[in-house]
Amino acid sequence: MIIAVAQDAPASTSAAILQAAMAHGLTARCLTGDHGGDVIGIGGSLPAEDLALPGVLDVKPAHKSYMLASLECRSASTVMVGDVQIGNGAPVVIAGPCSVESREAQIEAAVAVQRAGATILRGGAFKPRTSPYSFQGLGEAGLEALAAARDVTGMPFVTEVMEPEMVDLVADYADMLQIGSRNMANFPLLKRVGKAGKPVMLKRGFSATIEEFLMSAEYIMAHGNSQVVLCERGIRTFDTTFRFNLDLNAVPGIKELSHLPIVVDPSHGTGRRSLVKRMSMAGIAAGADGLFLEAHPDPDKALSDGYQTITPAELRQIVQATAALSETLFGIDDDAAIEDIALETAALVAVSA
Amino acid sequence: MIIAVAQDAPASTSAAILQAAMAHGLTARCLTGDHGGDVIGIGGSLPAEDLALPGVLDVKPAHKSYMLASLECRSASTVMVGDVQIGNGAPVVIAGPCSVESREAQIEAAVAVQRAGATILRGGAFKPRTSPYSFQGLGEAGLEALAAARDVTGMPFVTEVMEPEMVDLVADYADMLQIGSRNMANFPLLKRVGKAGKPVMLKRGFSATIEEFLMSAEYIMAHGNSQVVLCERGIRTFDTTFRFNLDLNAVPGIKELSHLPIVVDPSHGTGRRSLVKRMSMAGIAAGADGLFLEAHPDPDKALSDGYQTITPAELRQIVQATAALSETLFGIDDDAAIEDIALETAALVAVSA
Amino acid sequence: MIIAVAQDAPASTSAAILQAAMAHGLTARCLTGDHGGDVIGIGGSLPAEDLALPGVLDVKPAHKSYMLASLECRSASTVMVGDVQIGNGAPVVIAGPCSVESREAQIEAAVAVQRAGATILRGGAFKPRTSPYSFQGLGEAGLEALAAARDVTGMPFVTEVMEPEMVDLVADYADMLQIGSRNMANFPLLKRVGKAGKPVMLKRGFSATIEEFLMSAEYIMAHGNSQVVLCERGIRTFDTTFRFNLDLNAVPGIKELSHLPIVVDPSHGTGRRSLVKRMSMAGIAAGADGLFLEAHPDPDKALSDGYQTITPAELRQIVQATAALSETLFGIDDDAAIEDIALETAALVAVSA
Amino acid sequence: MIIAVAQDAPASTSAAILQAAMAHGLTARCLTGDHGGDVIGIGGSLPAEDLALPGVLDVKPAHKSYMLASLECRSASTVMVGDVQIGNGAPVVIAGPCSVESREAQIEAAVAVQRAGATILRGGAFKPRTSPYSFQGLGEAGLEALAAARDVTGMPFVTEVMEPEMVDLVADYADMLQIGSRNMANFPLLKRVGKAGKPVMLKRGFSATIEEFLMSAEYIMAHGNSQVVLCERGIRTFDTTFRFNLDLNAVPGIKELSHLPIVVDPSHGTGRRSLVKRMSMAGIAAGADGLFLEAHPDPDKALSDGYQTITPAELRQIVQATAALSETLFGIDDDAAIEDIALETAALVAVSA
Repeated sequence: MIIAVAQDAPASTSAAILQAAMAHGLTARCLTGDHGGDVIGIGGSLPAEDLALPGVLDVKPAHKSYMLASLECRSASTVMVGDVQIGNGAPVVIAGPCSVESREAQIEAAVAVQRAGATILRGGAFKPRTSPYSFQGLGEAGLEALAAARDVTGMPFVTEVMEPEMVDLVADYADMLQIGSRNMANFPLLKRVGKAGKPVMLKRGFSATIEEFLMSAEYIMAHGNSQVVLCERGIRTFDTTFRFNLDLNAVPGIKELSHLPIVVDPSHGTGRRSLVKRMSMAGIAAGADGLFLEAHPDPDKALSDGYQTITPAELRQIVQATAALSETLFGIDDDAAIEDIALETAALVAVSA
Repeated sequence: MIIAVAQDAPASTSAAILQAAMAHGLTARCLTGDHGGDVIGIGGSLPAEDLALPGVLDVKPAHKSYMLASLECRSASTVMVGDVQIGNGAPVVIAGPCSVESREAQIEAAVAVQRAGATILRGGAFKPRTSPYSFQGLGEAGLEALAAARDVTGMPFVTEVMEPEMVDLVADYADMLQIGSRNMANFPLLKRVGKAGKPVMLKRGFSATIEEFLMSAEYIMAHGNSQVVLCERGIRTFDTTFRFNLDLNAVPGIKELSHLPIVVDPSHGTGRRSLVKRMSMAGIAAGADGLFLEAHPDPDKALSDGYQTITPAELRQIVQATAALSETLFGIDDDAAIEDIALETAALVAVSA
Repeated sequence: MIIAVAQDAPASTSAAILQAAMAHGLTARCLTGDHGGDVIGIGGSLPAEDLALPGVLDVKPAHKSYMLASLECRSASTVMVGDVQIGNGAPVVIAGPCSVESREAQIEAAVAVQRAGATILRGGAFKPRTSPYSFQGLGEAGLEALAAARDVTGMPFVTEVMEPEMVDLVADYADMLQIGSRNMANFPLLKRVGKAGKPVMLKRGFSATIEEFLMSAEYIMAHGNSQVVLCERGIRTFDTTFRFNLDLNAVPGIKELSHLPIVVDPSHGTGRRSLVKRMSMAGIAAGADGLFLEAHPDPDKALSDGYQTITPAELRQIVQATAALSETLFGIDDDAAIEDIALETAALVAVSA
Repeated sequence: MIIAVAQDAPASTSAAILQAAMAHGLTARCLTGDHGGDVIGIGGSLPAEDLALPGVLDVKPAHKSYMLASLECRSASTVMVGDVQIGNGAPVVIAGPCSVESREAQIEAAVAVQRAGATILRGGAFKPRTSPYSFQGLGEAGLEALAAARDVTGMPFVTEVMEPEMVDLVADYADMLQIGSRNMANFPLLKRVGKAGKPVMLKRGFSATIEEFLMSAEYIMAHGNSQVVLCERGIRTFDTTFRFNLDLNAVPGIKELSHLPIVVDPSHGTGRRSLVKRMSMAGIAAGADGLFLEAHPDPDKALSDGYQTITPAELRQIVQATAALSETLFGIDDDAAIEDIALETAALVAVSA
């Protein structure tokens, strides 16, 4: 059940609804709606008498199992990471090395990607690696390096957290918490980041359906955190020519289902440096709200993922092309324009017949 | 083995090589190379003495199993359909209804898509249908309707051929022969279109790897026809949210392997009308040489595939956006630009360190 | 619509129904039902007055799109290949080399697989090969070799036909026509074998859903041939450890949907000789009506697929284990047995509570 | 590097090798080898002088990235769960409800599955659910219910642990820790169960390759726990006819790579109650060391997964058929038998030629 409350309703209205839900043993979460007032999602139904309150604008059943994440709840939302807005505007470029390698290296990388035009920094301090014998990341020292790079550049940063126990530690340092592809369905972790009070970058599981992806966002939102950005990062298919297949259908497809911003990761989505630029452009053209890129001052010397990591110069090219492309595409979904053309075309066809 | 022959070599040189190959029981095919002279691909190796001929520029082993289709053979090639060039220039828009429905309907559709900006017409006269009880196409009457629409509009058309016996009939009418996704590995059919003397639109099998796709192009080329355009039309994955998943990685990925032009089909690649525009843009941004679209004056009344078919008005929007996008992206792969920026960035990072 | 006609009905009843269907422009096909009388499937609905005929036992709507192949039409059917019955009894072993290599080699192989216990011979005269430069089979000479091997051993043989034009030629020689995996959705070919009057071995497309597989059987049946045996031969998945993944779920899964016999092909389904025996056993245990195996007197010298081809000695082991397994499993699906045990178990649980 | 130490070597030998590894900063783990002595796996190479110790039998490079799990390390191993042995003998049947529902219900279920012939009990106290609004399990009360059921029946039990922080709690109650499919690549969790001192049932990720599956086992082993049982439970493919596709190729395939026991889960692997019996048989015939089944006294009333849960009566049928099948198949992989037959067959073929 989704309940819209007027912006000028007394605070007691939302509070009473949340309390009524609790009394019935139902989950209830509050978001800000398009109209500026509260939108309350309830994991079940409240009787009408509990909703006879001043300022209740609208009560509707939720049809999607991902109630809070769905467009039934509100239209396109935005997420602030530091002072950078993701969603509903110019695409954002998030870039940095796969792994934090050292304090100095991370600062150098941060300066380089910032000069190239990125506005959010990335870097892994805790690394999920297929082999127990591979480098597993610098841990807390990596978080310190990221914070130092933020001090130097002023850029907020996003970094991965892999287990519930580490959420508080990572949230102490980071501006945004990343949930990796392998952890998209790690429900205890999703619950914990739901309570961490920091924006979340949720990467799609490489074999997750779109509905499962949105259900994972719902986990985070149902536990109290509506600052979720989705990230399409490639799916696993029968064709192993590429490491993964960037699933760009998911970008406009998800925008028909959910209000959450979505970015694309062409680094993992292709697994090949030479394809990153083209697939970045494709992602922006598909309607993505940003790019999530592995970039390194010297990719061939990167501690991990070098084969899919671009240089700062390539990053700059991408940033510039992204801006140009975004401007060219502005208004492409304008339906009014379509109507006019439709009438005109009908006329032309009539003449030719 | 790939042999380049100078443009001003005597005609006897290429002839002698082809004859030597035949004498050794080897397949041999001749293409026009980048340099204007012949490039001869041989399915095996000739002894050096057979190649001691005037005008032989270069002899190299072929490393790809799709020798003739590969970049080892030549750089980006183009295919002419009527007077429309596909490849190496502005993207081409091919559009029309899924099925030819009648002479009048096909003419109306052709006029509509031409007014919207398409330059090649499509339409199915022979339809592969999953059920034996579904409409199987108009057959030869459909070919006549397509020819009539060409007469009215001047636009060349492409249409599917499904079996070897019908290749000559379809080639009598059509400007370009289409091999459907289900027939990508129908080798007898590929051999026959290899001899038909008409350009071929080869659609990727929805579960074919990129190597298998290029091997099917090779079949056509090895039987004498180098006028092949590839078409990425969506692959089958675990996620059935969409009918298929348009695999845009394949576009820049194939351009690193093959000289053949490649277009994308966002109609089948998404299976959903509302996604076609965005995924058309994504396809162009990924580097496609054109779009292959299902368009119909009244999609809801189309005899097949209406749910993924766009209107002429939407098509016009796509044509206009394609042109704008293509111009914006021009030069994105210019490596000289990258080098300069790389030096500059290095300097900036040095200063900031 | 499915109409059952009594065994002792006048012949005019079925004839009248077929004629009525034709008059209404509907497809209609006649099979033998479980009760010994005709079962007529009609691709649409006839008015009640057309069915007021002596001996009409039952008229029901068809709910499956593969009406003739479905269990709605009749219970488990059998197919005779020469004098060998497939379905409804002991599992059948079909074996032989991937490609026919010569008359002598095929005779030697036939003798060897017969001694090992196989009762139907296989061998490819026309070979679908990914590369145009690979060996494409002996063609008609291969058919002659197969016929010679039949003369020597008395075993009927199955061999692949790849194009509609060749169906009559292949049917002149073969006891059973094989449709390969790549041709499962080659509809013109299915139509033609539907008219060829020979039993058909239909291999599942390696990316075909079960519904698509049964629709392809329906094509053959709707064109007049109900002698169809299905063959599960492995599907393409994300995991390329094996050439294909034998999908044994499909065996009991299809038996819940269709009356057609089904065999499994662990040679292609694993792509690895060392796994064939175990996966043959697994296929029989899953309920398959037979095995379709690549066997060769000297697999390492086979012209194709040697890496997945077993020796006659391994084949004999499989034949013996198949017989033992089949006997052990007899009656496993006996529901009466379940009921008794259920009552007894309930009693035991009651006592222990 | 893998080092075998003699059974009668002084204890100081293994200790010295482990110490040398530590001194070089290398991971080192000790297993019991086939010969009764230690086998030490080292994540790198030690200099020869460190290995000049009494009782060092053999030193070889490890070629598999999953060194400890591989057959390079030792031949088929066994795992004890309570007093039940998994591996190298008669197949084991593990059964119980998907979720623990109450103390009474779990006891009733345990009695029922034991009477049916199961020897290890299963049941979920912590449940990974796609929706945050679904029942998430009873938590510790569920563990207590499982322990109570063990007290009544004497059967050891396996139950899932979903997050590192809960490992100690679950290990306090359970005889075996289950890692669910979604957590197969939850590396922090794998590390923690590696230290928990209890046997582990590791379920394959539904989109994990076989190599990734074995790497996850390696994580557990590299952190100190070699008591790992693998569980094939179905993979996700393009075909959604079934919930998952039980990948039986993986059973004999893994036995060629790893010494760890492997069981199959036809409940999740089919997602359909009516297929469980047949696919259990197929799993045993493929060579599995046991079955992992969802069974419930009244499946239609189960709190979760009822559609794929069998009754105790069906379970008894499976237990009986498993025993019969296992006996029939005994010796199927006996190569000596093959050799004899090969000679004989060669003779027969010679005679017939």
